[in-house]
Amino acid sequence: MTMYELIQAKRRGESHDRAALEILVQGITDGSVPDYQLSAWLMAVCFRGMDARETADLTACMAASGDSVDLSKFGTLSVDKHSTGGVGDKTTLILAPLVASLGGKVAKMSGRGLGHTGGTIDKLESIPGFRTSLSPEEFFAQVEEIGVAVVGQTGNLAPADKKLYALRDVTATVDSIPLIASSVMSKKLAAGAHSIVLDVKVGSGAFMKTREEGEALARAMVEIGRSCGRRMRALVTNMDLPLGYAIGNALEVAEAVEILQGGGCPKLRQICLELAANMHALAHDIPTDRAAEEVRDALDSGRALSKFTEWIAAQGGDPACAKDPAALGTAPCVKTVLAPKAGYLSAMDAERIGRAAMLLGAGRAAKEDVIDPLAGIRLAATVGDKLAAGDPVATLYTSDEKKIASAEAAFMAALTFSDEAPDLLPLIFSVVE
Amino acid sequence: MTMYELIQAKRRGESHDRAALEILVQGITDGSVPDYQLSAWLMAVCFRGMDARETADLTACMAASGDSVDLSKFGTLSVDKHSTGGVGDKTTLILAPLVASLGGKVAKMSGRGLGHTGGTIDKLESIPGFRTSLSPEEFFAQVEEIGVAVVGQTGNLAPADKKLYALRDVTATVDSIPLIASSVMSKKLAAGAHSIVLDVKVGSGAFMKTREEGEALARAMVEIGRSCGRRMRALVTNMDLPLGYAIGNALEVAEAVEILQGGGCPKLRQICLELAANMHALAHDIPTDRAAEEVRDALDSGRALSKFTEWIAAQGGDPACAKDPAALGTAPCVKTVLAPKAGYLSAMDAERIGRAAMLLGAGRAAKEDVIDPLAGIRLAATVGDKLAAGDPVATLYTSDEKKIASAEAAFMAALTFSDEAPDLLPLIFSVVE
Repeated sequence: MTMYELIQAKRRGESHDRAALEILVQGITDGSVPDYQLSAWLMAVCFRGMDARETADLTACMAASGDSVDLSKFGTLSVDKHSTGGVGDKTTLILAPLVASLGGKVAKMSGRGLGHTGGTIDKLESIPGFRTSLSPEEFFAQVEEIGVAVVGQTGNLAPADKKLYALRDVTATVDSIPLIASSVMSKKLAAGAHSIVLDVKVGSGAFMKTREEGEALARAMVEIGRSCGRRMRALVTNMDLPLGYAIGNALEVAEAVEILQGGGCPKLRQICLELAANMHALAHDIPTDRAAEEVRDALDSGRALSKFTEWIAAQGGDPACAKDPAALGTAPCVKTVLAPKAGYLSAMDAERIGRAAMLLGAGRAAKEDVIDPLAGIRLAATVGDKLAAGDPVATLYTSDEKKIASAEAAFMAALTFSDEAPDLLPLIFSVVE
Repeated sequence: MTMYELIQAKRRGESHDRAALEILVQGITDGSVPDYQLSAWLMAVCFRGMDARETADLTACMAASGDSVDLSKFGTLSVDKHSTGGVGDKTTLILAPLVASLGGKVAKMSGRGLGHTGGTIDKLESIPGFRTSLSPEEFFAQVEEIGVAVVGQTGNLAPADKKLYALRDVTATVDSIPLIASSVMSKKLAAGAHSIVLDVKVGSGAFMKTREEGEALARAMVEIGRSCGRRMRALVTNMDLPLGYAIGNALEVAEAVEILQGGGCPKLRQICLELAANMHALAHDIPTDRAAEEVRDALDSGRALSKFTEWIAAQGGDPACAKDPAALGTAPCVKTVLAPKAGYLSAMDAERIGRAAMLLGAGRAAKEDVIDPLAGIRLAATVGDKLAAGDPVATLYTSDEKKIASAEAAFMAALTFSDEAPDLLPLIFSVVE
């Protein structure tokens, strides 16, 4: 089967068999399929879709197109979480030690962030001394010993996906459920965990705009993972507002510590407990309600915080931040933003708030930009709060005073005030399994 | 508007405005739009289509992307015909002098053939001495003086279309009505004629498989031309069988002479009279039935044959062939193919017959192949004829005896025999205006 015939078949709405997809992915990986044929095929997929078997086959071929991490020695205890992207999402910092404190094995490769705010690796690097590069031996030994290690991505995971993604990004073919699902899952499969919990974000700033779309994507990813022999579950969650109060690297580590200390933003705590319960349930094959109890106990008893401390120390970080987040330091320039008038804070555009944090130095506009680890935003109010004129809404942090004005303007533009209390959507729409 | 936004808009089913299409065609022409974006856009067009205004704008922009021929001094008298491709289509050789004998101005640039059989230029070059390259001055002077000149294409007509066509050919995006219509019409508009008659072929070997598709394409092209100020008409015709009896360059010139002498294949005569009537009606703005009478008279009175003789001589060709086609010569190797059994000849696959003619040397498999002007096929029977076993079906001609066996096999494979008389489709399905 030639690439021309593949395009033609997809244009007609036919489904590709495994052999055809192997040829396709081989051609993507070795560069023999020209981009102009790939992009025509991608657009045909956007219109015609792919069935579940076909999507799973494409994903498996892409996962096998490069390096992969072998976590089979940990069996189903190896557990991973993936979020489809959210602003202020520091859940990995909380979930990894929480689930590891219950015997799960969290061996995670994480990316750096491009865009709004840093990725998990950027957040961890705001902890003085923390090493995000470990040798494979160190990495596996640490997982074996303490149950958790998080490092920057090395090796060449799913290169076919990398190429396809770059092309989708410039040909308006990003938002297609089988293409998103196979892209995410090819990397997750190559990353090796046997139990995988997905956090599919839905909202104005996410790929998926509606709950229905989010659930369709969640189902597609769960089916792919399961058909490749992984234990799978997905939460469909609301990202119409940032996750927690902090957006920015050290600020988010500090907020993670608050949660691990038993306090913090109730909504953030809720979503972490729910994700952790599902991860724990999959890893140990126990009912979710029992897993939820065990997870709550691990958090409230301080075992998760101890595991966090152990983890940070194991990777060379200063564990003092686990006792007192102030050890991470504070940005020299601080500006409190006040409510311009009385009323309800009825909406916060998460994507715009992310952009405001980036303007303060918390994220990268370009790959080569250097992150200011202390920069970011700490919200003092959230959607649904009733404010008087002059009440604090947030505090902006940066090391560069010149950045405050534009960031403040961007932040204010993200807020909507109203006279009446807004209807609040639930934080978690559904669990797909 | 960026190319990304154009792709996105088309994916959503939006229509592009003139300014957007100008940017697109400019980017195609100067090479600044990468092929991978163009092919994604082409595939989106295949699914979403283009409306009439949009298709006309795209066509006008492509027509303006390179050189164009200025025939405005001849006004609507400048008349052209375009066929969407047929096997054994020698109508230009008949129509050009026929319409010119009634005052029309046929200033035509024609291509060489790739595939089955030669193009009009290849056919004309089988006439000893005929020059297919004239200087622009010679070309226009000849049109002025005798009303007809046909030369090989020079200059760079509609380069944006050329690029788009090459990309469509390798990305399975050829068969889209707005893309086919804009491609054909961009070249026709650049070629300058003010009155244009289209011959849209329908059948198993044509782009358009059904009468309905053919009529939709015809309407799209007529609308484009009219919205660009041209006089337009289209015939939708049946190409389930070859046009006339001859396939091959000198053989087709000989058959054209037969028609001009008042004889020849009745179906070929019929389609030529119909096309010529429409060309003549447009050029002189007269009713088609009056045009049809004048055209028949020009053919039967020998005026068209005189004009043919004048034309051939003007371009240096030996006019002896207009008296006796034998002057063109005969191929040294001749083989008569006989009916293998008694029955009705119920179908002839035009495309396969074209391929058989190519195998004899009448067409080019690759651009650099040299055509054997005397090679080809002369049919002795046509669809619907009742044959006895051993009756002649066709004669094969070639200069290379070794080619006969494979060509004969290919030719026989194109024929279907049956015990009952087949239903015959009309030759001309409809006229779109």
